[in-house]
Amino acid sequence: MLLEPQFRTKLSDKIWSNVERVARMASFEGALARAQSNVGLISRSSADAIASICGGKFAKAEAIFDEAIDAGNPAIPFIEHLTETVGNKHREAAADVHFGSTSQDLIDTTNMMALVQVAERLEEDLGRIVSELHRLSMLYAETPLLARTLLQPATPITFGLKAAIWGLAIKRNRKLVQSLQQTELAIQLGGSNGALPAMSPHGSVIRGHMAKLLGLTNPNHCWHTLRDRILTIAATLAGTVGATAKIAGDCLLMMQAEVAELQEGKPGTSTSMPQKKNPVHVLIPVAALPIAAAQISAITAAQLHPHERAPGQWHSEWISLPLLSTLALVSAERLKDMLHHLDVNSSRMRLNVANTNGSLGSEELVQTLRGILGRSKAHSLIKTLSYQTGGETFAERILCDQTLRKLIPEKTLRNILDYKRPLAASVSEARRLSSQLMDP
Amino acid sequence: MLLEPQFRTKLSDKIWSNVERVARMASFEGALARAQSNVGLISRSSADAIASICGGKFAKAEAIFDEAIDAGNPAIPFIEHLTETVGNKHREAAADVHFGSTSQDLIDTTNMMALVQVAERLEEDLGRIVSELHRLSMLYAETPLLARTLLQPATPITFGLKAAIWGLAIKRNRKLVQSLQQTELAIQLGGSNGALPAMSPHGSVIRGHMAKLLGLTNPNHCWHTLRDRILTIAATLAGTVGATAKIAGDCLLMMQAEVAELQEGKPGTSTSMPQKKNPVHVLIPVAALPIAAAQISAITAAQLHPHERAPGQWHSEWISLPLLSTLALVSAERLKDMLHHLDVNSSRMRLNVANTNGSLGSEELVQTLRGILGRSKAHSLIKTLSYQTGGETFAERILCDQTLRKLIPEKTLRNILDYKRPLAASVSEARRLSSQLMDP
Amino acid sequence: MLLEPQFRTKLSDKIWSNVERVARMASFEGALARAQSNVGLISRSSADAIASICGGKFAKAEAIFDEAIDAGNPAIPFIEHLTETVGNKHREAAADVHFGSTSQDLIDTTNMMALVQVAERLEEDLGRIVSELHRLSMLYAETPLLARTLLQPATPITFGLKAAIWGLAIKRNRKLVQSLQQTELAIQLGGSNGALPAMSPHGSVIRGHMAKLLGLTNPNHCWHTLRDRILTIAATLAGTVGATAKIAGDCLLMMQAEVAELQEGKPGTSTSMPQKKNPVHVLIPVAALPIAAAQISAITAAQLHPHERAPGQWHSEWISLPLLSTLALVSAERLKDMLHHLDVNSSRMRLNVANTNGSLGSEELVQTLRGILGRSKAHSLIKTLSYQTGGETFAERILCDQTLRKLIPEKTLRNILDYKRPLAASVSEARRLSSQLMDP
Amino acid sequence: MLLEPQFRTKLSDKIWSNVERVARMASFEGALARAQSNVGLISRSSADAIASICGGKFAKAEAIFDEAIDAGNPAIPFIEHLTETVGNKHREAAADVHFGSTSQDLIDTTNMMALVQVAERLEEDLGRIVSELHRLSMLYAETPLLARTLLQPATPITFGLKAAIWGLAIKRNRKLVQSLQQTELAIQLGGSNGALPAMSPHGSVIRGHMAKLLGLTNPNHCWHTLRDRILTIAATLAGTVGATAKIAGDCLLMMQAEVAELQEGKPGTSTSMPQKKNPVHVLIPVAALPIAAAQISAITAAQLHPHERAPGQWHSEWISLPLLSTLALVSAERLKDMLHHLDVNSSRMRLNVANTNGSLGSEELVQTLRGILGRSKAHSLIKTLSYQTGGETFAERILCDQTLRKLIPEKTLRNILDYKRPLAASVSEARRLSSQLMDP
Repeated sequence: MLLEPQFRTKLSDKIWSNVERVARMASFEGALARAQSNVGLISRSSADAIASICGGKFAKAEAIFDEAIDAGNPAIPFIEHLTETVGNKHREAAADVHFGSTSQDLIDTTNMMALVQVAERLEEDLGRIVSELHRLSMLYAETPLLARTLLQPATPITFGLKAAIWGLAIKRNRKLVQSLQQTELAIQLGGSNGALPAMSPHGSVIRGHMAKLLGLTNPNHCWHTLRDRILTIAATLAGTVGATAKIAGDCLLMMQAEVAELQEGKPGTSTSMPQKKNPVHVLIPVAALPIAAAQISAITAAQLHPHERAPGQWHSEWISLPLLSTLALVSAERLKDMLHHLDVNSSRMRLNVANTNGSLGSEELVQTLRGILGRSKAHSLIKTLSYQTGGETFAERILCDQTLRKLIPEKTLRNILDYKRPLAASVSEARRLSSQLMDP
Repeated sequence: MLLEPQFRTKLSDKIWSNVERVARMASFEGALARAQSNVGLISRSSADAIASICGGKFAKAEAIFDEAIDAGNPAIPFIEHLTETVGNKHREAAADVHFGSTSQDLIDTTNMMALVQVAERLEEDLGRIVSELHRLSMLYAETPLLARTLLQPATPITFGLKAAIWGLAIKRNRKLVQSLQQTELAIQLGGSNGALPAMSPHGSVIRGHMAKLLGLTNPNHCWHTLRDRILTIAATLAGTVGATAKIAGDCLLMMQAEVAELQEGKPGTSTSMPQKKNPVHVLIPVAALPIAAAQISAITAAQLHPHERAPGQWHSEWISLPLLSTLALVSAERLKDMLHHLDVNSSRMRLNVANTNGSLGSEELVQTLRGILGRSKAHSLIKTLSYQTGGETFAERILCDQTLRKLIPEKTLRNILDYKRPLAASVSEARRLSSQLMDP
Repeated sequence: MLLEPQFRTKLSDKIWSNVERVARMASFEGALARAQSNVGLISRSSADAIASICGGKFAKAEAIFDEAIDAGNPAIPFIEHLTETVGNKHREAAADVHFGSTSQDLIDTTNMMALVQVAERLEEDLGRIVSELHRLSMLYAETPLLARTLLQPATPITFGLKAAIWGLAIKRNRKLVQSLQQTELAIQLGGSNGALPAMSPHGSVIRGHMAKLLGLTNPNHCWHTLRDRILTIAATLAGTVGATAKIAGDCLLMMQAEVAELQEGKPGTSTSMPQKKNPVHVLIPVAALPIAAAQISAITAAQLHPHERAPGQWHSEWISLPLLSTLALVSAERLKDMLHHLDVNSSRMRLNVANTNGSLGSEELVQTLRGILGRSKAHSLIKTLSYQTGGETFAERILCDQTLRKLIPEKTLRNILDYKRPLAASVSEARRLSSQLMDP
Repeated sequence: MLLEPQFRTKLSDKIWSNVERVARMASFEGALARAQSNVGLISRSSADAIASICGGKFAKAEAIFDEAIDAGNPAIPFIEHLTETVGNKHREAAADVHFGSTSQDLIDTTNMMALVQVAERLEEDLGRIVSELHRLSMLYAETPLLARTLLQPATPITFGLKAAIWGLAIKRNRKLVQSLQQTELAIQLGGSNGALPAMSPHGSVIRGHMAKLLGLTNPNHCWHTLRDRILTIAATLAGTVGATAKIAGDCLLMMQAEVAELQEGKPGTSTSMPQKKNPVHVLIPVAALPIAAAQISAITAAQLHPHERAPGQWHSEWISLPLLSTLALVSAERLKDMLHHLDVNSSRMRLNVANTNGSLGSEELVQTLRGILGRSKAHSLIKTLSYQTGGETFAERILCDQTLRKLIPEKTLRNILDYKRPLAASVSEARRLSSQLMDP
């Protein structure tokens, strides 16, 4: 149990189980046999025998991966077991198992098949997150919230705008996941040297047929040595973790007791402190991010893939890809659930804005005065007022300042100190972006 | 001089110089003024004054970046200098400098402008590399070359096929660079809170206008807190380093004295050993790759960008992006030059194939025999012959084996031992992929 | 200007300048000549001529690094220039320049010499940080402060304890820096094949002599292919960035307006918002950390250093080491300055504790009750009281609860609700650890 | 099965199993109870009851980790199960379970206990590798072998020297592992706020007692927020992977068919190609290295551990540490086995040296001539001879050159062309370093 269940999902457990890994290898061999018999490379009866065995269950999943230790990869013992099993039932067919293919075809292609399942679930969960964020962005389109730059209060926005902007990144990542499905999750078929010599001249046809049978795209050439495809996939998966971690990280900051704008709907407890309501689910994408960052770095390094099959760099992908895809799945699933149950304390959001006492209106005050006093004088005047200390608030000081009262009508001053303009702009931007979220 | 000239190019030096960085900030402010006067937010005369200053040269580039140490970012001192300069010439216009914008708009957008220049050069250099590889793939389409898996000889290909496959990754990366230009290199404009309150309701129009003036795409919303765009860009730049390093790494292995299939046309020398012809240029992408891998990891980690402006994570991009883009530029430039002057020793390629003495035909022998003997028996027979030791070569043993002679016609045996089928398949695949390289 | 001045220091600029790099190469060659003449390998007059030139200034620093592009490394053009310069003055001596050494000796050793300077400054700055933290830990030993776990309030500590614990990590890292100076910053001298054939049998003596002249440790063997030393150094430098970033990150959170316990003494400003007091200096270690993390990853990957000199992996260290050492220097320097000017708002620390209204005493309440009610009943009782809502505070509810009043004396209850025990424990731990900080 | 068995060992499976993880948590709680009863904090009978349960087997290991998903960490459900189990047997003792401690104490300390087991095995396996390399360095102390710089032939060494230098890095890493055991693998005990308030004033005594019981070092303070210790550990584990990968990578290059100096004693096979003897075991450290590099980067990033317990950064260590320690264990184990069975082809080593035909003597020729002709002339003369093409070898050209024959006695020339001096130096250096390997 190298990775605790907290960082996995039921689906990721299934996809990367021994049994499913072997089932995918069997699907590959079944599809290969079908496609080869279709062009007459092997007999229909061989193909039937192989495909029939490959459609069933394999008992020895665990043994296959143990034998891989000495064989060098799991394809070798799998093919041995399959050949034996086929041979027991249909002697001639055994000779046609895995014909003209090679370990790398089997391993690269079945990893792609796994990633198809990963992408399908991510596409779905990211869609749900977008819906949750759409809901929040509509519901709180008008709820004032501090913007925070460098962790300091900045001109207010609304929580709806924040949620909508969160949603844009998720939506964008979801499109990248969809484009993986359309262009990157591709069959690898090259045979012993990449040119499919034993299947010549039917190689291209067989590759195309198999791609259809296995639900993969067909790049129309072998890519055994070109790992850029893996990098694109990894960047998208790391992007999922990143986009969910950005939201989770913001939530964590808003959950601080001193900020108290958000709370997990289903918080964790503490054995020692009965009053504790600990954030639990938002931690997961935050914990996953440095690990995801690390995997994409390993996958980038593995682009240097010596010659026609790398001695190690290729194998490192077998570690990175399952881990990275699992982290993407768990990050999306947890954020989806957390957002669904999220407690929003909108009155605290308003209060945190109110506590700034108009001081965030200083920029607009300067802008309003700049035509009258010049920018530099205006900036000095407001700076001086904002740095004054004493019992009164910034708003009170502004409203009592005789110079200002002469230059700007009181109503305008009050609007500025109430952040009317930035809030109005945020409300309309929240609505505009919110509707973009639901665009196809 | 943190990065030695070996890892830079003239263009990267220019793009990331003080002077060009400041010039880009000036272009931003000029465009902002123009776009704002167009919708009547500031006066035409202000815009003219600002744009005229911004179109000229700035003397204090170095000072601006030194002042950034205490200010927190270079935008702050730049705006101060600009306001002062504008004010000296046109008093009222000074009040309109940088109106309603913020440091992050300026920094994110000017970084994107730098990346436009990076992308243009990469697009060009990658195009040249594809041409070089197309040339090699045509010229050596029929030249036998060992495939090498796990650094061991495998069924032969041709050098033309290897070059064509190298080219596919470069071509693909070039398409990604083009798509950066079309969708990712985007203006950032959000003002103090992301909703452009001071420019309301003209924000969207101003953003669109500025994007055109600055040669950037318009995402139609602010992305100050959404760093996924940076991750996509980084993955593409790292992909450039990866695709060039893969080729460079293969060349390095082929340049080994014991392999001797390639040599740099302009090798390095040694002060101590006069006979040395060291590979020099191919080292660069190989050296750049782990550093590029590291930067993409840092950029992934920076996806967790707290609230509306990150306290540190944002700033880390200012280190990663210049470095990563420089490594992509130097990797592409060096590989391009190296390939242009590459010495190909095709007779040594043939010799290295010939030295395998037919032993790489064992797979095809088994395939040929499997219908007659069954796969398992066939495999054993050939394995036994291949493991025999003695004076004769594998080919000689096969041709003298009485069992084999009875089962397979001599001509077929000779074709197998001469790798006729895999070489023919490679030649035709080399030609097919070579023509794909030149597709648009 | 790949790295903006914000992320550098005056010292790092000096150390990694062209001029200093060349000066270090000259020192190496001077020391080599001296050591070789001492054992009679070259003449005294040759050594005098070489050492005299090497002790002076070199005009062509920039050219040397430009020529490295085609030569493959800067040692080659440097040796050419040096030989020519020596030859102009003393013909025979030219023949003895760099005798029996190789490029890697020169480059590895001079990098170590640079790191000696880095280590000296780090050792000093880390010492200053420990002093600042010692000061804070004494001054605020009794100032209550919330502990915060998962960003939620936990049993209070004192600010003095927090500062003392911060200091322990810095002190530990400083010891690691000292141990670099004692064992890791070592001369590399191996000659053309690692065994110093041309200096045989004087190799070891020459190496030892040079180490003394250059202020490096002597590993008593060549380490050209063993990059573990670099990894240890990198881990220590990354540890400096990590230990400073931990403190900076905590400060950033305590500087949030809603927390307001700390403020930078010399904050940054904003061109748009006159009231802003932005944290500026604490951002630097936080920004540096992901980049430092990335470099150590690159240096780890470069441990796979093929054969006797790596084609690229070695060169990647030339990028990582200057960058990483610069980030360590700037992180330590900035934190040192920031802590020196730090504004501590101890009344706000107390207030934030007070605002928890005794709720953090729940653990101690359970502990006190567990002997009477059993742990599970005690836990339930307190949990129920802590989850009640209404106008009263937790403390008020506890003090009014009739069951509790019967079971626990009021004075004990009040002590618990005032966090007497954890605060007392923190005060005494703060003092104990504070005095540890000043231990040698 | 996120990580295939190829990348694990039996021991790593055991250490990171559910059952062992829970057993370690039980040991912690048992030791805590013992130590607390010793100072009278809890009763002896409580301690007996707790320790007795904790010394037995736990049935619900898997459930505990599943419940951690909602609880936030496995310590919480574990303490609940333990408390219940203890309570069933000894009611009062249940109240004393985990008294005054916290989740982080439990998790950090039990991870350290796991790492003790990792370190023990590494120490042993690294010791075995040093022995194997000592054996090879003695056996082949005089066997000529090409040094290779930038993958090009350089002045010859001997295989014994190469093996001895490999060994030095392993020996050094082993010392680092030993120092982990002595100083870094430390108990974490801080209670709810780091100052052990509930155990006051016995905290230090309890910590010391527990450290002894659990076989850990005692840092004499809590380190819950100071993750530099983890970084030091990670750097050492990554160093193990690096040092083994360096050797494995060199072996892979020497196993190339064109080089043929080494072969795995127990190679892998191929289903398609009967003649194949694939390297299998050496791939593992090479595959592990980029992943190890990635983990150390994640652990460095996690140094920024907010406040008294990080919301995510801490949790990311739970992924990195098991993975990294597993990769270190499997890398060491596989290299150890591979070296034990390694086939060394010393005649091919000699042949590869011989094939250079004296050309690597050019440096020594220049050195010999430099006193007579001056360095520059000597360099030109030899360079010209080395670049000549034609039927004769470099050695033949040198021996026939009339100028050289006059300047240097034939015997000297022959010695140079036979690499006598560098080989002699290598033999003596091999012996010297070989004996260092066996030093304590």
